[in-house]
Amino acid sequence: MADPTIAELATQITATQTGLNIVWTMVAGFLVMFMQAGFALVETGLTRAKNAAHTMGMNFLVYAIGVIGFYFIGFGLQMGGVGGVFGEAAVLSKEFTITLFGKPFGLFGMTGFMLQPLSLFTAGVATTFLFQMCFMDTTCTIPTGAAAERWKFMSFVLFSFCISTIIYPVYANWVWGGGWLSQLGANFGLGHGHVDFAGSSVVHMTGGVAAIVIGKMIGPRAGKYTPDGKIHPIAPHSIPQVMLGTFILAFGWFGFNAGSTLSGMDTRLAVVATNTMIASATGAFAAFAYVKVKWGKADPSWLANGMLAGLVAITAPCAFVSAWAAALIGAIAGVLVIVAAVFIDSKLKIDDPVGASAVHGVNGVWGILALGLFANGVYGQGLNGVPYGVTGLFYGDKGQFVAELIGIAANIAYVGTVTAVVFFVIGKLVGNRVPLEDEISGLDLPEMGVHGYSSDAGPLPAGAGRTPSGGAPAHATVAKVLPTL
Amino acid sequence: MADPTIAELATQITATQTGLNIVWTMVAGFLVMFMQAGFALVETGLTRAKNAAHTMGMNFLVYAIGVIGFYFIGFGLQMGGVGGVFGEAAVLSKEFTITLFGKPFGLFGMTGFMLQPLSLFTAGVATTFLFQMCFMDTTCTIPTGAAAERWKFMSFVLFSFCISTIIYPVYANWVWGGGWLSQLGANFGLGHGHVDFAGSSVVHMTGGVAAIVIGKMIGPRAGKYTPDGKIHPIAPHSIPQVMLGTFILAFGWFGFNAGSTLSGMDTRLAVVATNTMIASATGAFAAFAYVKVKWGKADPSWLANGMLAGLVAITAPCAFVSAWAAALIGAIAGVLVIVAAVFIDSKLKIDDPVGASAVHGVNGVWGILALGLFANGVYGQGLNGVPYGVTGLFYGDKGQFVAELIGIAANIAYVGTVTAVVFFVIGKLVGNRVPLEDEISGLDLPEMGVHGYSSDAGPLPAGAGRTPSGGAPAHATVAKVLPTL
Amino acid sequence: MADPTIAELATQITATQTGLNIVWTMVAGFLVMFMQAGFALVETGLTRAKNAAHTMGMNFLVYAIGVIGFYFIGFGLQMGGVGGVFGEAAVLSKEFTITLFGKPFGLFGMTGFMLQPLSLFTAGVATTFLFQMCFMDTTCTIPTGAAAERWKFMSFVLFSFCISTIIYPVYANWVWGGGWLSQLGANFGLGHGHVDFAGSSVVHMTGGVAAIVIGKMIGPRAGKYTPDGKIHPIAPHSIPQVMLGTFILAFGWFGFNAGSTLSGMDTRLAVVATNTMIASATGAFAAFAYVKVKWGKADPSWLANGMLAGLVAITAPCAFVSAWAAALIGAIAGVLVIVAAVFIDSKLKIDDPVGASAVHGVNGVWGILALGLFANGVYGQGLNGVPYGVTGLFYGDKGQFVAELIGIAANIAYVGTVTAVVFFVIGKLVGNRVPLEDEISGLDLPEMGVHGYSSDAGPLPAGAGRTPSGGAPAHATVAKVLPTL
Repeated sequence: MADPTIAELATQITATQTGLNIVWTMVAGFLVMFMQAGFALVETGLTRAKNAAHTMGMNFLVYAIGVIGFYFIGFGLQMGGVGGVFGEAAVLSKEFTITLFGKPFGLFGMTGFMLQPLSLFTAGVATTFLFQMCFMDTTCTIPTGAAAERWKFMSFVLFSFCISTIIYPVYANWVWGGGWLSQLGANFGLGHGHVDFAGSSVVHMTGGVAAIVIGKMIGPRAGKYTPDGKIHPIAPHSIPQVMLGTFILAFGWFGFNAGSTLSGMDTRLAVVATNTMIASATGAFAAFAYVKVKWGKADPSWLANGMLAGLVAITAPCAFVSAWAAALIGAIAGVLVIVAAVFIDSKLKIDDPVGASAVHGVNGVWGILALGLFANGVYGQGLNGVPYGVTGLFYGDKGQFVAELIGIAANIAYVGTVTAVVFFVIGKLVGNRVPLEDEISGLDLPEMGVHGYSSDAGPLPAGAGRTPSGGAPAHATVAKVLPTL
Repeated sequence: MADPTIAELATQITATQTGLNIVWTMVAGFLVMFMQAGFALVETGLTRAKNAAHTMGMNFLVYAIGVIGFYFIGFGLQMGGVGGVFGEAAVLSKEFTITLFGKPFGLFGMTGFMLQPLSLFTAGVATTFLFQMCFMDTTCTIPTGAAAERWKFMSFVLFSFCISTIIYPVYANWVWGGGWLSQLGANFGLGHGHVDFAGSSVVHMTGGVAAIVIGKMIGPRAGKYTPDGKIHPIAPHSIPQVMLGTFILAFGWFGFNAGSTLSGMDTRLAVVATNTMIASATGAFAAFAYVKVKWGKADPSWLANGMLAGLVAITAPCAFVSAWAAALIGAIAGVLVIVAAVFIDSKLKIDDPVGASAVHGVNGVWGILALGLFANGVYGQGLNGVPYGVTGLFYGDKGQFVAELIGIAANIAYVGTVTAVVFFVIGKLVGNRVPLEDEISGLDLPEMGVHGYSSDAGPLPAGAGRTPSGGAPAHATVAKVLPTL
Repeated sequence: MADPTIAELATQITATQTGLNIVWTMVAGFLVMFMQAGFALVETGLTRAKNAAHTMGMNFLVYAIGVIGFYFIGFGLQMGGVGGVFGEAAVLSKEFTITLFGKPFGLFGMTGFMLQPLSLFTAGVATTFLFQMCFMDTTCTIPTGAAAERWKFMSFVLFSFCISTIIYPVYANWVWGGGWLSQLGANFGLGHGHVDFAGSSVVHMTGGVAAIVIGKMIGPRAGKYTPDGKIHPIAPHSIPQVMLGTFILAFGWFGFNAGSTLSGMDTRLAVVATNTMIASATGAFAAFAYVKVKWGKADPSWLANGMLAGLVAITAPCAFVSAWAAALIGAIAGVLVIVAAVFIDSKLKIDDPVGASAVHGVNGVWGILALGLFANGVYGQGLNGVPYGVTGLFYGDKGQFVAELIGIAANIAYVGTVTAVVFFVIGKLVGNRVPLEDEISGLDLPEMGVHGYSSDAGPLPAGAGRTPSGGAPAHATVAKVLPTL
């Protein structure tokens, strides 16, 4: 066989690199998808057994809702103007843009809906869809923790569609889809514009801000705050679920952060993953040290939230900072999450059963600030059209820090406002909160038709339906569907 | 250093591509292996706590049995005639073939047993073994759900060896090992022959048909159907287990389907994964909508089976269909699984505790039909020696649809018959069903020697063995082995 | 565009191969990290519900401790003299070496601490750090099983820092960091020196030896051995946790073993993974056959430990042996683990609640011996500077077997001694064991401030803190931190 030509070799090399990039991004995307299981376990473990089927059910269905909402609408809004992906022709090429201060402000994309037409459903677009979908779904699942144990299931379904179609994709477009926040550098000289490597603001703040707003609007769980000003703690029902869930999240977070290179050729992914690991560890250990000193116990649910806080905080800066900075960012996050959670609970009187507001909201903000402070300038050349590496305030680029602040303000303003309006409207339509008697008895049977746990040792009497081990008769209509499960 | 030659560069490129293909296929194989944990959790969660050790034990040991059976016999029968793999010399090169209608009919392979000789144990063969083994083991584990809570452990062991050595590998040879079903196109002009991209028929129908046969032969659980014609539902004992298991399955399914490209260079894997994600979501959501409208509750066990049904159905067509078709295929599966499960339970009076028959059997058929209907012709050029892309009935290739029907019929005939014979013989040898008193008390202690759950807070009296929390003395012989666990 | 030059192509190919190698190693590292969840589940499931938060808490925090200890000190000691990694310039280039018998004996590395300076924090070094850290942490977590249900949390914290900073890294340097054990071949003609492909000695023996020493020093759980010479078994509280954890471990072990090629270009990784799978299966099945014959029950906790034993045993030889040898090594391990566990429990009177000593210690030794016996010479050319393939005693290389024995002796001597000294000192400083009353009531509330499981259905009275379902009042100081979890 004759030797190939130089051009043929070059084509093969490009194809191999594209293969490697897509394989890496897909594997990372799978890991991010698996984080849904982690959220489900953490949220269910931190709440009560009587609501386990409901909390699990929300965390499960939110994945399906997210895929569907993103498929029909969200993906196009977010990525429809992003151009070519993975070296392919630019089929995602239309951004809706207005002009302000004499500069273009991209607001949302306008192609890619339903992955149509068929010519648009390429390998590169499919990779982008799957990867971005998993990020979006992380956001979707955050409010289910804050409103757990009292959220009406149908309200949850409707609200989740709104996150996946409108709330998340528009803000994500501004940062990752070529929209206006990403252009603050090119247009106004503010560093690289609002930079968020893997989603401290795009994913976690969006979820956290929505969690705070919903948590306030839906009100605390029955009996949490009594008129005499007392706060009544509610015990988590399964620490093993919480710990397993946190490990799954930390595992998937490697895909979340390192996968955000979108390239296996970009070996910076190893630095990203290592920074992620370090910050997760210092977050957990700082939380341990803090609770041990303050209360004398090593409560594992705080350790878990300390690790998650470290992970949230390192998500934006992971690619741009030194290892020591990652360690410091994580350690601060591990203490911050506890202080913030106690403040939100005792001062703001927002009853957030899993601490989602403190983990994702407060530490999402901290992560963005940390990027604006600690970015050391060695990486990010060319990002958002700016030639030098991303550089934080401590390394001399004030503009970068300002761009980060603008992104934070924009997130709070947009996500907070739209969430409040949408949640209010849904409440008028179907009601946001279950009846008090369902909350007291547990949401599982009235909302889901099945108990989270059953100790029944034998068949149930025909027509009685699922019953708790204590024997209260359940909904007869459910009985029909039980046998084959 | 002197520049390399063109030939040296070409060699390096080929080696890099082989490395990428093997890395991709191995990672995908690991994900498929992890699905065993998902099956274990779903099946155990959907059954009763008193049988948790037994159900878990079956799902655990089936992995070991599968590896051993496949290593000694199954792999050779399935893949022994497949030729070269991953660009290597063709060491798997002998297929047993008969002639019918003047054409060759490959029936099973004849090399590769025990991965011997040493020259056969190459990287490519090892990759093929590991990947195919994980698919086979998925089939192995499906009947353990249908016969749960009454299957004698020794009968389960023997039957699982039969699946891994004979039942699965022979049918898999027909479709994926170069056997006669894959040649229906080349030999008889029926499209590309029976095409099943990742196993709706090979894996899921095989498991599902076996589940239906065994479920019928072993009979319902005690008390499930009473002489007065009533059906008594049996409650699942842990919804969190079911949900976690389903997430693990959906996570692993990305390896299952996208990994079936067997190539990281084939970026079609991204389209495959995206179609898989979309169908899983529409399956779950369609199930939600159906049960919500029909019974007013969002029972999470149905939502889980809806997602699994969507995944089973998209498994065959995932590489060949448009995104909208994937959405439709999944949505139909999500409703079909409920209708089918209720029918199998109430009309056929087959007591399938986890719905395996409906999920894997019925939706395996639907997935194959869907490929025969919706394949859009853009992929699959060269598959099974046919030059054009795989094309379904709706796009004009009737022959493809007929080939799919023949594969379905062959699966039901072969798997159904062999399963029935084997299960009958095993029943004569060791008995298929545990004694009634064990079923009533729970299988854990009599079969496994340990309870699935124990609330004992202290050491057990010497010689008493493991006891339930209620305190019934257990088997003294077991006590000896307990301490170090 | 002009064609690229040959040199440009060669550069691109090298970059692509480096990308593939780093992607493979990172993905494998993520899988190894996930094994922490597996250990947490296995250890918690095999112990009692009243200690679930404590056992989970140790297995969780050990990950954070490990990262921090390894970041500050351990990594530098282990890998500081290893030279260039992943084709990069040799920034890890200083080994502390003494001279004995006229030959250099490397003892530990001297660069890489805190991943400083910034020029050292390359992609290759980051990959090496993350991958090696996960291996180290596996070792860290093994003693938590052996000392479960009575280990004071602060003692555990201090000891875990000692493993991650001193105990593990020094021995790992000797085998994997270019230290003296790896040079026994080059310096003294003993085969390839002490070879351990993925850690039967480095990881598992180190953990197992520490487990035995600590298990003996801390003493048995209250009531386990009574003065009349009786042994009182203690039941595992959750078999599903044990089984899920074992599956997670077996899943992650593919990264552990196959990832140890540190190269996606080295397709031997497929043979490694396949041998790993086979040995895990024969280990589990041999354990099943043994307990079934001996006690008539298929106790799943033994099946799990049989699989883990097979995995530990194949970890050293996985790259060097034939498939039949892998099957044999695993089968022997599956029986050996039971015999050894019963011996350690009944003869040595070491109360190891999870069998860590038998699984990791005894089978770690067996794995190293197996390599020295069964290595077939087809792989390992150039390893540790020795040109031919690694060859065991049965294939004619006595020196290799001797080098394996020396590594075993060195591990026992070094790890055993340092562990004993460190544990003794920590005991003097903070005490190693919880008070008897905490052990009887369960460690969860006194040590962790939270119960592992709670069946509370409503808010707790203000100030009462977390309580068990029975209602005993808990620590009021903890109450303050509860609400947001």
